[in-house]
Amino acid sequence: MPERTGSNKQPTIREVALRAGVSPMTVSRTLSGGESVRPDVQEKVLRAVRELGYHRNENARSLRPGHRSGLIGVAITNLGNPYYGNFALGVEEVAAQHGRRIIIGSTGEDPLRERQLVSDFIGRQVEGLVLVPSGESVDHLSADRLGGVPLVLASRSLEGLDVDSVLLDDVGGAADGTRVLLDAGHTRIAFLGNARSVFTGERRFEGYVRALAERGLSPRDELVERGQQDVASAEVATRRLLDLEHPPTAIFSANNRNTIGALREMGRRLRAGESVDAMPALAGFDAFELAELMPVPVTIIDHDPQELGRQAARLLLARLDVDRAAGHGKTIEMPVRIVAAN
Amino acid sequence: MPERTGSNKQPTIREVALRAGVSPMTVSRTLSGGESVRPDVQEKVLRAVRELGYHRNENARSLRPGHRSGLIGVAITNLGNPYYGNFALGVEEVAAQHGRRIIIGSTGEDPLRERQLVSDFIGRQVEGLVLVPSGESVDHLSADRLGGVPLVLASRSLEGLDVDSVLLDDVGGAADGTRVLLDAGHTRIAFLGNARSVFTGERRFEGYVRALAERGLSPRDELVERGQQDVASAEVATRRLLDLEHPPTAIFSANNRNTIGALREMGRRLRAGESVDAMPALAGFDAFELAELMPVPVTIIDHDPQELGRQAARLLLARLDVDRAAGHGKTIEMPVRIVAAN
Repeated sequence: MPERTGSNKQPTIREVALRAGVSPMTVSRTLSGGESVRPDVQEKVLRAVRELGYHRNENARSLRPGHRSGLIGVAITNLGNPYYGNFALGVEEVAAQHGRRIIIGSTGEDPLRERQLVSDFIGRQVEGLVLVPSGESVDHLSADRLGGVPLVLASRSLEGLDVDSVLLDDVGGAADGTRVLLDAGHTRIAFLGNARSVFTGERRFEGYVRALAERGLSPRDELVERGQQDVASAEVATRRLLDLEHPPTAIFSANNRNTIGALREMGRRLRAGESVDAMPALAGFDAFELAELMPVPVTIIDHDPQELGRQAARLLLARLDVDRAAGHGKTIEMPVRIVAAN
Repeated sequence: MPERTGSNKQPTIREVALRAGVSPMTVSRTLSGGESVRPDVQEKVLRAVRELGYHRNENARSLRPGHRSGLIGVAITNLGNPYYGNFALGVEEVAAQHGRRIIIGSTGEDPLRERQLVSDFIGRQVEGLVLVPSGESVDHLSADRLGGVPLVLASRSLEGLDVDSVLLDDVGGAADGTRVLLDAGHTRIAFLGNARSVFTGERRFEGYVRALAERGLSPRDELVERGQQDVASAEVATRRLLDLEHPPTAIFSANNRNTIGALREMGRRLRAGESVDAMPALAGFDAFELAELMPVPVTIIDHDPQELGRQAARLLLARLDVDRAAGHGKTIEMPVRIVAAN
């Protein structure tokens, strides 16, 4: 039980420090995530915090001139996709090491929602923003509109903004994945991808086209299905491809939602008695669980969403803690790996 | 471009309302998520917000007496598990409908981290808390310590706290799942589960024991593997089970991390040339993608994490907006469904 009796008197950080036998700075560091504080000392501090019923008032702190809110706003496109959960986990990990906490919001690929979310984050005086952009518009993201709050773009870039970005090697990865299918002798290779407005979708299509061109091939309209943002629509698109009079013998898929949709449709056909030899080979961006148990050969263009999140956070923290104003926006392109899943 | 020139003068909500030709209340509602504001009116308001470069200062608002911060703190155990991403999405959905935003933190099943996170949330003056508890301790969660901020527990309950909780029918679901295996003729049924300290793990083990008892069976020590919190350790535990002189002919798994670990180990054996008929049947809690393509029969105890999140948010918002102090903590137990995955 707390020992104080008058519930209006809030204990101070000095009282906590005194009780724990440490400095106020150690109390502060412990409550900011415990970076560089020994676990046994943290335990002592937190015991004192509990016994006194102490709470930092973060909002009041953030309004003192020169004080930081300690919040980083993270806007992702879909919290329900494990890819973005892991991405946010990477941002959170690095942010916590620097005494920051993240606020997460999901835009659902809706530019209007993104605009509201960014405005709301700024209103909450976040110190920095990490954004997976959901559209092509940039007017709500100018330095002016953000009031000078640093912004890092992740996974997708935007024309006309001079900010730091962390991207994947989308073009190279898609070309390499397509080459695996070409090397296995396929020439009718279909493409499954998300909306044209999505930056990664466009870049991955470019990689697919480039690999085909190296072998003197070009994409065929009837084998290109774009615009699928979820598993259900990817399943329908795959059904249309496999129902063609001359179906593709292989599929390149631009992300894991499309890959899983393709596999679901193949599973449906196998259960209906079709032969596994009649199914197309598959290569796709993004790892997914249990890929090694799939009944058809699957090639993965693999990368680490958590590391992407860490990199984005590192770029942001460098702006915050080191050289906020220094230099133009940097773009880091992270490598991908081609893996035979099964 | 913003039309104001002096960058220190912040425009007011009245100026935004005037420019958009709406009331200040409509501006406020639009910026709180747009509940009950027509899309075209929202677009008009946001255009005025952009043109004037207006930002709400949420922190300053929250310090005015009687004003609300509009933040709900959500502490989950692992942001990288899609289950919890979907859970958070459900909380966010209902919170946004009521003009609230969520802050998410991940405890990594670490009670010390949970304590820091809760203290931090309270310091940021969250209006309410949704927590998936990671331990058994409750002292940091008493109404006193939370300063009267309402708390809802999700997925797991805690002894000694009179708060609202949303649980799954863990015992009934585990018993039903185990009965499917018993009905198929299995009597050597292993159990894979997470740490004993995890509430759901304990309840699901209880369901498994109950179903065995109905057939005059009791759990055998060598067939019970508990304490696996991730896929890798579940894989190792499954390997030990299948290497027994008398291996189990079926496995009941208490969550999707354990189920996927079991399937990975089976996949390894199949690729090494073992017969699919030598693999155990599997029943497990939690749906997962591509279950229908697994080479062994899989029974799923299915439920909807997003709906669990929505329910938790609804309980919290009822406390916040309707009857904060009214009545004792309620417990809602959500039903589960038994599904043959393949």
